[in-house]
Amino acid sequence: MNTATIRLYDLAGVEDDRRFSPYCWRVYLALRHKGLPFETMPWRFTEKEAIAFSGQNQVPVIVDGDQVIHDSWAIAEYLEDTYADRPSLFGGPSGKALSRFVTDWVETVLHTGIVRLIAVDIPSHLHEKDRDYFCRTREERFGMTLEEFCANREEGVTSFRNHLAPLRATLQHQPFLAGQEPAWADYVTFSAFQWARCISPFPLLMSDDLVYTWRERMLNAFGGEGRKAKGYPCSPG
Amino acid sequence: MNTATIRLYDLAGVEDDRRFSPYCWRVYLALRHKGLPFETMPWRFTEKEAIAFSGQNQVPVIVDGDQVIHDSWAIAEYLEDTYADRPSLFGGPSGKALSRFVTDWVETVLHTGIVRLIAVDIPSHLHEKDRDYFCRTREERFGMTLEEFCANREEGVTSFRNHLAPLRATLQHQPFLAGQEPAWADYVTFSAFQWARCISPFPLLMSDDLVYTWRERMLNAFGGEGRKAKGYPCSPG
Repeated sequence: MNTATIRLYDLAGVEDDRRFSPYCWRVYLALRHKGLPFETMPWRFTEKEAIAFSGQNQVPVIVDGDQVIHDSWAIAEYLEDTYADRPSLFGGPSGKALSRFVTDWVETVLHTGIVRLIAVDIPSHLHEKDRDYFCRTREERFGMTLEEFCANREEGVTSFRNHLAPLRATLQHQPFLAGQEPAWADYVTFSAFQWARCISPFPLLMSDDLVYTWRERMLNAFGGEGRKAKGYPCSPG
Repeated sequence: MNTATIRLYDLAGVEDDRRFSPYCWRVYLALRHKGLPFETMPWRFTEKEAIAFSGQNQVPVIVDGDQVIHDSWAIAEYLEDTYADRPSLFGGPSGKALSRFVTDWVETVLHTGIVRLIAVDIPSHLHEKDRDYFCRTREERFGMTLEEFCANREEGVTSFRNHLAPLRATLQHQPFLAGQEPAWADYVTFSAFQWARCISPFPLLMSDDLVYTWRERMLNAFGGEGRKAKGYPCSPG
């Protein structure tokens, strides 16, 4: 089994060690889960040529020997299949199918909720060469300025917390989405919160929320790597 | 292994064969999935004494030999553990943990969305002895009349369909939530739609929606039992 060092191209901000992409975080945690040796390469939005070899222009991208894989779900599938003898990300075919649903829930509910709470805080953390690109593409996508897009976030966060109801309900039954130990479903969900934590001081969760307690557990995982990563303290709202 | 006939207490309407509880439907489908012999007992909301032996006052309740189990999730766990040699409802520990999340998503998002679209249609299908009980308890719960609660459902259904985004996204990748074949995650989700179909003519889905296509597959499962059950045709909206 090939266990040469894997390379992960990972979105970075002004500082090389401010890593805030939720899609990269889930791959980072998946690599840690598998216990694979890897190194990360800081990458900025406008460095399209640096990952042109992958055939597309977004991170995460991993390079594992002669294999190049992009798209976080495709990377998770690759790691699960290639390193099947290491701890499983999905827990079998049913777990994989259901992990897909959690991933889609994260992307359609959590990401769309969080971006309205933190987008305005992103530009100041971006490398100078990325700022214009980011603001222009996002303002086109949102159809308004970032300030307008995040207006009323003090009220919006209540709605966001309400949308966490299924996660909160599940955490009444078990410590992690994937059961007794975290796996892919937890990594994709936590990475949404980690995106916010690394880029914005805006508090997403109240301290009496089971989701907050779960996030604490996730921040402590792998020797507290999530907590040690450059970002803001996860202050309760 | 005990395969004596299991008895399922199942919510019924005016007619014995109008079965509309989403919690009972999921147990019904789980019993079919396991291929177990069972019979159903029509039960009405006000027949509390008929299930007093279960120690509580709601259905579903199953009786399997000397075992009495209530609560749909507890029943699913019981069936999975007791009939482990039969087709799995969860697909292992990870699948079970993630099925819990799907169940919680269904209850916090689908049920709360659907009830605002169909509650007003329920009383006319209830047994006469249940109608006052149902309207009184629901109007207390909702803090308004059923007519007020379901006002503007023509507009509300658009929001409901938007909330199906994660399900719709997953169905772009696989035919069922549980993967290539339906299992518990599909039964709990389908049962929410089946609740609506059995009690209300109000159309929930558009025919060009992947969720509609998936529901068609689920209606056809087990020889079309879901489709043959007394209710309204699933007309597209």
